[in-house]
Amino acid sequence: MTDERPLRTAEIIAVGSELLGSTRLDTNSLFLSERLAGLGIELRTKSVVGDDRAAIRTLFEHALARADVVILTGGLGPTDDDLTRDAVADALALPLEEDAAIVEMIERRFARRGLRMPAVNRKQALVLKGATVLTNPLGTAPGQFLEHLGRVVLLLPGPPRELQAMMDRVVAGPLGARAGHERLLRAVMFVTGRSESHVEELTQPLYSRWRDSEPRIDTTILAGPGHIELHLTMRSEDAERAGEALTQARDQLVAAVGPDVFSLDGRHMEQVVGDMLRERNLTIAVAESCTGGLLMSRLTDVPGSSAYVLGGAVAYSNHAKILLADISPDLLAEHGAVSEAVAVALAEGIRSKTGANIGVGVTGIAGPTGGTPTKPVGTVSIAVVDPNGTARVRTLLFPGGRAQVRFQATQAALDMVRRMVAAT
Amino acid sequence: MTDERPLRTAEIIAVGSELLGSTRLDTNSLFLSERLAGLGIELRTKSVVGDDRAAIRTLFEHALARADVVILTGGLGPTDDDLTRDAVADALALPLEEDAAIVEMIERRFARRGLRMPAVNRKQALVLKGATVLTNPLGTAPGQFLEHLGRVVLLLPGPPRELQAMMDRVVAGPLGARAGHERLLRAVMFVTGRSESHVEELTQPLYSRWRDSEPRIDTTILAGPGHIELHLTMRSEDAERAGEALTQARDQLVAAVGPDVFSLDGRHMEQVVGDMLRERNLTIAVAESCTGGLLMSRLTDVPGSSAYVLGGAVAYSNHAKILLADISPDLLAEHGAVSEAVAVALAEGIRSKTGANIGVGVTGIAGPTGGTPTKPVGTVSIAVVDPNGTARVRTLLFPGGRAQVRFQATQAALDMVRRMVAAT
Repeated sequence: MTDERPLRTAEIIAVGSELLGSTRLDTNSLFLSERLAGLGIELRTKSVVGDDRAAIRTLFEHALARADVVILTGGLGPTDDDLTRDAVADALALPLEEDAAIVEMIERRFARRGLRMPAVNRKQALVLKGATVLTNPLGTAPGQFLEHLGRVVLLLPGPPRELQAMMDRVVAGPLGARAGHERLLRAVMFVTGRSESHVEELTQPLYSRWRDSEPRIDTTILAGPGHIELHLTMRSEDAERAGEALTQARDQLVAAVGPDVFSLDGRHMEQVVGDMLRERNLTIAVAESCTGGLLMSRLTDVPGSSAYVLGGAVAYSNHAKILLADISPDLLAEHGAVSEAVAVALAEGIRSKTGANIGVGVTGIAGPTGGTPTKPVGTVSIAVVDPNGTARVRTLLFPGGRAQVRFQATQAALDMVRRMVAAT
Repeated sequence: MTDERPLRTAEIIAVGSELLGSTRLDTNSLFLSERLAGLGIELRTKSVVGDDRAAIRTLFEHALARADVVILTGGLGPTDDDLTRDAVADALALPLEEDAAIVEMIERRFARRGLRMPAVNRKQALVLKGATVLTNPLGTAPGQFLEHLGRVVLLLPGPPRELQAMMDRVVAGPLGARAGHERLLRAVMFVTGRSESHVEELTQPLYSRWRDSEPRIDTTILAGPGHIELHLTMRSEDAERAGEALTQARDQLVAAVGPDVFSLDGRHMEQVVGDMLRERNLTIAVAESCTGGLLMSRLTDVPGSSAYVLGGAVAYSNHAKILLADISPDLLAEHGAVSEAVAVALAEGIRSKTGANIGVGVTGIAGPTGGTPTKPVGTVSIAVVDPNGTARVRTLLFPGGRAQVRFQATQAALDMVRRMVAAT
């Protein structure tokens, strides 16, 4: 029976004109691709299409010709712009039938807020003939799961919370039941302080061999902001054995790259540093100039960071450096605001002022203006004072525009803290 | 001649396995869609596909069946993973021919750095028969422009700087020459402090009429982090008349929504506030707690912000509030750290400490822990002290997780500064 062929490939179609002109992060497809990988189903293509019935229909037809699973997200609301149901019905030549239970559920949802269901919401109760309704406890748009000629079509609402809860139930239920025994396993490592080509040079002799191994391991190198990611993936029916092989492979890469590897579990730098500080009962304070609060903001992005972050000063003007971080006017005059001496004084000043174990000082030129021949845009001096009061200081030159310089400077500062703490 | 039919629709295909598993911002497609709109060409679909020759080929074939212009980005490098050229050649049944001028150019590029061109780079000199080569002064991957059966196929490199420079030349050159006289015009407005449905309620009676006007105006409402965007678009051959009609329509929306509209030109809140401060020669300083440096970081994201941002304190612990922002321990004990009294004291403290014209104080509970029945997670008190020393203070309750609470709190604080400065 063709229906019993395990599902191997998937495509995602996000519906919504507003998504075409947006730079917003696409968290839905990342979530869906991870859940699909967990079932051994590989995401081949993801697409975005506007609220145009014919365009959605054609895109869906083509996707269904290419992939075993097609997931459409969004376009399930009650308005005229919500066309996903209609477009899929057109493509599959299936009628839409009103589901009385959904109407009742939406009516109850409105009634709980003392409201009557607007007539337009009836549209959300239209179900593709033969589809399983996926109830939505978090919103009015139900999802739909349909098996069609051996393929699976999944309609999910766009809001991430609603989509995620529904997808998890589908994975545990009808989608999981149709998946094969193969699983897609992944391992990641994050590296900082090296270029992509340098990381490739160190690791390529290792991973190039794994492409022909059995089972095969695929490696992707990806340059993120302030770090390089290595992704290892492997397809196998024996999850335990594959997991071991993958860990072994990853450990060989770690050995080749060395202490520039800062994360093996997807944690970002601020989380890695935060966990190290918390484990060791250390506190930190920051005085930053060119990074303008971004270093503190990254440190405090981490839930629970109030346990180890005491506070910080953003000393943008010279006057503020003197007032907020106790920098002496003479030092500023002698060395200039962007100097290793001032970086150290910022770190020492904020450390003694707050009583933190660790002080960090950052000063530099983020651009686009303010550069000089000897200190061009991108020049940043970073100092870290350790719990014994010993200072380390570096001056780096970062490429890119203002945002890149600022981010890389915070990444380098956090990495200096990481190495210092690891060494103590 | 079919070749002379003006181009109306476009699709973008981004090639790269790393893009499928990434949450990185897709700035390329936004840039391309704007340039296309400038030529009256509407972006219908954007897709991402992995480095798989057959998958790229099929996706490209389907896109070419749907759209007048297909732009493929990425996959033009020298390695085995770079398959865009091959996949397009497969689909169009066109041979790839080595271009001697490109080989020479890449050789010169390497020679300038004292290197010999690696043999693999020859691959980058392979050109689709009949295509125009688009030179790449910023990298080794040239682009290609091909007219095929009345359609246009464009191969562009993935790195944004390289892609943008090349696209601008294509728009001014062969792509612009094939576009029609119609242009797609846009107007935007950003609103803060209101929900999406509230903005819709105020504006829907206006924009619903424009759908049937001639020329028709389309309106999209889009909820961004901390703000609502209204996008108006119009297609017309008479750019001047259409621009006037669009401005008129936008002004009606502005009148309906009122002073919650903070931007009509795409500038974000930190830029709007920064420009207002700069124009009025005002300086600002910030003492923030739960936002942990994010408010300062947003203010200093703006190039040239050192002209009006003096400095800030991130007073995460009570101890730091006392030390960095001169908050009295008695006040903290009496009102609690999250209170309007402490918000005002933070704003006053940092203002007098730095000598800034405007002081801002933020204190609250970002979560996920720390909430109480009377002050749940999301409670934030924000104070702004104006150049006369008068304080305004508000306490707000923001929905969402830690990151959402933090961002919305900075948005509300910047908006309070905006309204205060506008009123003076």
